[in-house]
Amino acid sequence: MLRLDDRSLLRTLDELARVGAIDGGGCARLALTDEDKAGRDLVVRWMKALGLDVRVDAIGNVMGLRAGREDLPPVMTGSHIDTVRTGGRYDGNYGVLAGLEVVRALNAAGVTTRRPIAVAFFTNEEGARFQPDMMGSLVYAGGLGLEEAYGALDKDGHSVGGELDRIGYRGTLPPGAVRPHAFVELHIEQGPILDEEKIQIGVVESVQGISWTEYTVTGVSNHAGTTPMRLRRDAGFLAASVNVFARGLAHEMGGDQVATVGSLALRPNVINVVPNQAVFTVDLRNTDEAKLKEAEARVAAHVAAVAAAERVDVTVDVLARFEPVIFDAGLVARVERHAKALSLSTRRMPSGAGHDAQMMQRLCPTAMIFVPSVAGLSHNVKEHTEPGDLVAGAQVLLNVMLELAEP
Amino acid sequence: MLRLDDRSLLRTLDELARVGAIDGGGCARLALTDEDKAGRDLVVRWMKALGLDVRVDAIGNVMGLRAGREDLPPVMTGSHIDTVRTGGRYDGNYGVLAGLEVVRALNAAGVTTRRPIAVAFFTNEEGARFQPDMMGSLVYAGGLGLEEAYGALDKDGHSVGGELDRIGYRGTLPPGAVRPHAFVELHIEQGPILDEEKIQIGVVESVQGISWTEYTVTGVSNHAGTTPMRLRRDAGFLAASVNVFARGLAHEMGGDQVATVGSLALRPNVINVVPNQAVFTVDLRNTDEAKLKEAEARVAAHVAAVAAAERVDVTVDVLARFEPVIFDAGLVARVERHAKALSLSTRRMPSGAGHDAQMMQRLCPTAMIFVPSVAGLSHNVKEHTEPGDLVAGAQVLLNVMLELAEP
Repeated sequence: MLRLDDRSLLRTLDELARVGAIDGGGCARLALTDEDKAGRDLVVRWMKALGLDVRVDAIGNVMGLRAGREDLPPVMTGSHIDTVRTGGRYDGNYGVLAGLEVVRALNAAGVTTRRPIAVAFFTNEEGARFQPDMMGSLVYAGGLGLEEAYGALDKDGHSVGGELDRIGYRGTLPPGAVRPHAFVELHIEQGPILDEEKIQIGVVESVQGISWTEYTVTGVSNHAGTTPMRLRRDAGFLAASVNVFARGLAHEMGGDQVATVGSLALRPNVINVVPNQAVFTVDLRNTDEAKLKEAEARVAAHVAAVAAAERVDVTVDVLARFEPVIFDAGLVARVERHAKALSLSTRRMPSGAGHDAQMMQRLCPTAMIFVPSVAGLSHNVKEHTEPGDLVAGAQVLLNVMLELAEP
Repeated sequence: MLRLDDRSLLRTLDELARVGAIDGGGCARLALTDEDKAGRDLVVRWMKALGLDVRVDAIGNVMGLRAGREDLPPVMTGSHIDTVRTGGRYDGNYGVLAGLEVVRALNAAGVTTRRPIAVAFFTNEEGARFQPDMMGSLVYAGGLGLEEAYGALDKDGHSVGGELDRIGYRGTLPPGAVRPHAFVELHIEQGPILDEEKIQIGVVESVQGISWTEYTVTGVSNHAGTTPMRLRRDAGFLAASVNVFARGLAHEMGGDQVATVGSLALRPNVINVVPNQAVFTVDLRNTDEAKLKEAEARVAAHVAAVAAAERVDVTVDVLARFEPVIFDAGLVARVERHAKALSLSTRRMPSGAGHDAQMMQRLCPTAMIFVPSVAGLSHNVKEHTEPGDLVAGAQVLLNVMLELAEP
């Protein structure tokens, strides 16, 4: 069996983490910033040093190709190297650098696979600077037009198109021109399940559907001492009521249904004034589209009922809606088989977070491999995965890709 | 019967409202700002024009004294002229300027009362810039030391003592040196009850006890997609749960129990992150101290139970706690009698808001007169009271003070 170079994986992770490093051990490499450019330049240098044929497409996705014995669609792996503002060092980066270690192992062994191998990193997966997130892979899969993507603006009015030009990563290759034979993404879990259950490899079967809704509630601000309860039109009460309802709903529906009120702002936000405005969000996720729709409908009905009783007005803004994605069953089983063959403990699971792989499933058989995140911390400078787990996941990736590339 | 000069009352209210005027018809004269100084200077000029002996005490309370036939403790009225940031034009100002109209009516009739008459405005009633609120009257009544009051800082680090010097209102008179024979405060209701019931005069028997608590909840921030419900330690959920609980508690306890969550801030306050911090306030009020204590205990028990279940930490900060105040029964009855004698409709009621009068009750027999607030709006530029109601309330004040000053 080909073995991965453990130290090289850990060393490149360390080195990339020094680009845009922030206090506490994390990284800030928001998409298409100078820091992102520096990270890209470093990874491209590594790709070239490994002999890969580096191609940049029109949305800035970067692909390093290793020729096969035959001119067939490549077996592709990849992820992203942009981060959130207070990002960790493994989210995305791990999958990209593990892909390079697959290439290094093949190079070291002098192996030429039948199918080509490709390692990619996609533009703006995080969506922390430009929306939508998973932009590069979404454009790659044909889900978003180039012009629309170019026009996306950050809060300072800079466009994706302009920033791609500025950092020199607007390539000429049409996105999606290289249609892979299969795609496998290796990623940290970003959740606590593997860590809690002491399991080494998560075999990802699906990505949860996501429903993001923002509610703007308009009531009447009044004195908290002089206004009898029966006369109140309290915008904050509706927000609180939805939070409590959503918690109960998730427990009642069970399975992998989750519900979160992550963001809330009250006006005037003063101790002794009944709030006249509440703006809050509800994040609902389920791997089953029918159940996700049920959750959405029940939250909407609760909002309507409480709004009527409280005599407040509510406007509803759907911020994002992605249906669940089911990965290729054969490829999922293959990941599981290789992990078990390495005597690693496994667990089938959905991904609660969005990933580039969910876009690639539109183009080719796709699967994901998860490794544990200590305490489930993610988008946090304290994000951590033990070196042994990092190496184990990369070895699974290597074995899966090698098999996919032959014959 | 001496009659008040209606037009003078409405004219001075208009003129004072132009000092620190803001869009929509309201005022912004935060305590001890340049705008407050300009308002003070104007009212002091009016006091002097009416022949009052103007005295400023060490906390900046201003008193205009009209000599009586005998050198006895004065019959005092007064309120405040500072406002919140988006204040109305009547809150406080009305009581002070109606007091000046009492003096004007006495002057016009050439009446010298047996007891002196005093009209006062107290420093920083609102507490919008410096805490605690009702600062001037609290110091006047001996409930707060001068040095402690001087040391109170606004959010930019300016002190009460420094700002009193800056605007020239740190006087030499010891606060409380003039102990009144009686104190009557005329004020808008700041609530909807009189307006809703179409009653002209509120005969205020008491001031609700106030309990202000700030809770700081510390949970764990986690990914909203990848974190199962059972593993969440959601600081925002506790805040929401307390809001819903407090609403139910107020309805269950009934009477004049009110409960408000007016202020809430989540961190990181992002749609797809479980909040790791929530800072929120609970405002509880009741005219019955035992019931207020019951409400406090039940909220505290709910907080403790949910915190344990959610595995979040909670720190509790009591921001303010005033016991209910019961006004002088004889003076309350006197107010009611005079209102009825003017064929005005009356209603006995508690005050849901705090007022300088509640501090003065510590020193002398005290009562309050309320007039309706249209739709109960308060601390709002749209705060409004009909001119007829303003005049009626001031006439009640005049008649009550005249009787108190004789014999």
